[in-house]
Amino acid sequence: MDYYSGYISKLIEELSILPGIGAKTASRLAFYILDMPQEQVEELSQSIIDAKKNVKYCKKCFTLTDQDICPICASKDRDHKTIMVVENTKDMAAYEKVGEYKGVYHVLHGAINPLMGIGQNDIKLKELFERLKDDVDEVIIATNSSVEGEATAMYISKVVKPLGIKISRIASGVPVGGDLECIDNVTLLRALQGRVQI
Amino acid sequence: MDYYSGYISKLIEELSILPGIGAKTASRLAFYILDMPQEQVEELSQSIIDAKKNVKYCKKCFTLTDQDICPICASKDRDHKTIMVVENTKDMAAYEKVGEYKGVYHVLHGAINPLMGIGQNDIKLKELFERLKDDVDEVIIATNSSVEGEATAMYISKVVKPLGIKISRIASGVPVGGDLECIDNVTLLRALQGRVQI
Repeated sequence: MDYYSGYISKLIEELSILPGIGAKTASRLAFYILDMPQEQVEELSQSIIDAKKNVKYCKKCFTLTDQDICPICASKDRDHKTIMVVENTKDMAAYEKVGEYKGVYHVLHGAINPLMGIGQNDIKLKELFERLKDDVDEVIIATNSSVEGEATAMYISKVVKPLGIKISRIASGVPVGGDLECIDNVTLLRALQGRVQI
Repeated sequence: MDYYSGYISKLIEELSILPGIGAKTASRLAFYILDMPQEQVEELSQSIIDAKKNVKYCKKCFTLTDQDICPICASKDRDHKTIMVVENTKDMAAYEKVGEYKGVYHVLHGAINPLMGIGQNDIKLKELFERLKDDVDEVIIATNSSVEGEATAMYISKVVKPLGIKISRIASGVPVGGDLECIDNVTLLRALQGRVQI
């Protein structure tokens, strides 16, 4: 990196920290940024600072928001007795894009992963159980269909069931448009086990 | 993008401007940035501003540098009578990494590309010809082996030849370690035409 001016090397180094950005991509991005109009560069830099400064956890559901209580938790049109538990804000956004779900969310910010040293106290589980002291009809677990997501789902279900609250897990199966021959065995098995009468 | 806080949407939008960064990658990067420690975020943002503010063209070779005259042009150990013409600073860095070349450079910042409306006045060609008024022994053209790079090389050679300055083009052929059966026809033909006696 000594072939570039210190400022360019520094920029490349900083960009390389980002996930999925290797040295080559970082240098491509750096030279692109140097070529951008001044205002655009300032806007990019400012948006990074602004997002970091203003975005915090919603005090109820722990999604990332710029308000104390996020718009969904604050909305009177949502069913506050149904809580969908997701691993992160992006998963919540995925369901919001669908638009059909009218309940509220709880964002865990991760999943239980003993191998990575992430235990039940490292994600927002305590905060979820705290919420269940209010009037809640159903908890829908929408953690990922990975080993960690399943383990987290299992743990939540163990704690919630004795409380007499209805608990459900989003269905696992063949994705719409999926070609059976391209789908892994576990998914095929799950789809069979979860078959519904038509 | 309405599913996120305005600050997050803005950050995603700004990151999407960068080349090769689509909506999905931009949102992955944005959430990663939100998760980074405060100082690291500030450093990233500052490095963008610093690079844009301090990096300019070297007054001699037009590479990107933070000095008036870049370290290579200022060096007494380099052969200032040999000029290698490259399309951009990254290409210059590629040759500097090899470390064998002892001459200086001239960075065009592009190549002639009529389809994209880039003519001979849109890249640093005038500035190259200006430099040739000094005592220059050889001009080595190291533009890319693309249609635009070749057209630029041809144009430079046409202008420089009448001046009685030695002009050369870096060799085109099979890359070291390249498998003949995987190499395109034009390269194979070039390699044959450019064969050297052993």
